[in-house]
Amino acid sequence: MSSPATITAALIVIGDEILSGRTKDVNIGATADFCTDLGIDLKEVRVVSDETDDIVDAVNALRARYTYVFTTGGIGPTHDDITADAVAKAFGVALPINPQARAMLEARWKETGTEVNEARLRMARIPEGADLIVNSVSAAPGFRIGNVHVMAGVPIIMRAMLEALAPTLQGGKKVLSRTVKAAVGEGTVGGPLGALQAQYPDVKMGSYPQMGKDRVMTELVLRSSDEALLEEATAKVQAMVDAAHARAGVTPPEN
Amino acid sequence: MSSPATITAALIVIGDEILSGRTKDVNIGATADFCTDLGIDLKEVRVVSDETDDIVDAVNALRARYTYVFTTGGIGPTHDDITADAVAKAFGVALPINPQARAMLEARWKETGTEVNEARLRMARIPEGADLIVNSVSAAPGFRIGNVHVMAGVPIIMRAMLEALAPTLQGGKKVLSRTVKAAVGEGTVGGPLGALQAQYPDVKMGSYPQMGKDRVMTELVLRSSDEALLEEATAKVQAMVDAAHARAGVTPPEN
Repeated sequence: MSSPATITAALIVIGDEILSGRTKDVNIGATADFCTDLGIDLKEVRVVSDETDDIVDAVNALRARYTYVFTTGGIGPTHDDITADAVAKAFGVALPINPQARAMLEARWKETGTEVNEARLRMARIPEGADLIVNSVSAAPGFRIGNVHVMAGVPIIMRAMLEALAPTLQGGKKVLSRTVKAAVGEGTVGGPLGALQAQYPDVKMGSYPQMGKDRVMTELVLRSSDEALLEEATAKVQAMVDAAHARAGVTPPEN
Repeated sequence: MSSPATITAALIVIGDEILSGRTKDVNIGATADFCTDLGIDLKEVRVVSDETDDIVDAVNALRARYTYVFTTGGIGPTHDDITADAVAKAFGVALPINPQARAMLEARWKETGTEVNEARLRMARIPEGADLIVNSVSAAPGFRIGNVHVMAGVPIIMRAMLEALAPTLQGGKKVLSRTVKAAVGEGTVGGPLGALQAQYPDVKMGSYPQMGKDRVMTELVLRSSDEALLEEATAKVQAMVDAAHARAGVTPPEN
């Protein structure tokens, strides 16, 4: 099967606890790394509150725009876990108890002597037509419906679900990156870097100042899926930085 | 001056380096804490790439919807720093060199013996009609135009700019929170917690499982701007949790 040139994705992080600052998100970074490894271009992230309409709007806006949508959070057993409800609403489908999800949960509950109750059975409600995403950590499954992949918010469960998903996703052309370190400020390399960016439109060049170090440092990051072109552009950027170091009379940083 | 009932905000994090996973964002958490401290309800966060149209769309969607919009990232001297351009475009105004911003930068450059060049002067381009946000760390200012507050992406600079902004923002009614710790699973408290949430619609109740600890733990977080109501609801939740501990025969956790 041939890969389309670009496979894109968006992430929706669901939860008041992120927006209040009570919980510091780590799922954005994990999803970004996961996508980069698979050659999927993560184009956008939204963090939304535990409000049905906000989740529905984000799911519908993003699933129309990108190859894949991932969501994290809001699939537990309590009243504030409304992601399944919202995704079912976004797709206009029912949200019945799924027998396979119920069996997965009951098997785990039997092992651990956990009481089956209405709150826990909320976690077996899966939108009609969805496939389950296995949860190797705590049994309660995520699910995929259309191009939307619904995962837990707890980071270790979310990462286990991403791993379970990986074989089902189509990767794109892997984007490679090279970093050139400069011991001068961004403003010194900014002009010539812009000129090199114009010369190599298919190599994306970024400039990142490093604050709080002993001396001024700038990291120039080049990204492209064309390795030969990337090497050529990196050599040009390195030569430009070498010249800037010589002009400023500074020692080049270790690469 | 009387405060409106709810002051809302959105944050736009701008930068390919967040979406590629190369840089792990910490500005979302810092902005969330900042808003919570001021009684501002952070309703939504978007992370977008270094593409003008994506930034313009996010700025225009969110500034119409919330009291305040904050942005971080993309105000440095290099070609990939396009936030000022995008915000000027979103507001339909010009982006000239701002004399006050230029003076701030030149004063710093004089101190540090830094060459003035075209790349560095990009940082003095400020949308027409905007006010500057002082940058005590590295001089290059942010700016406020309408309800949109444009800040640096480097975390220490971003936090300095938030501090500079604080006196200019109108805070809302401060939201207080109480946490009740339970040594039983979410599924055990889920049903009665949902019933208590229905009884106290003005106290927002959240349930957060704590994974990876020695034993099952759930934190129940109650939030409200009405302190008396919050105390009353917290006492009810605590009594419900005490009963669950007694039924399960487990030792209550230390609060």
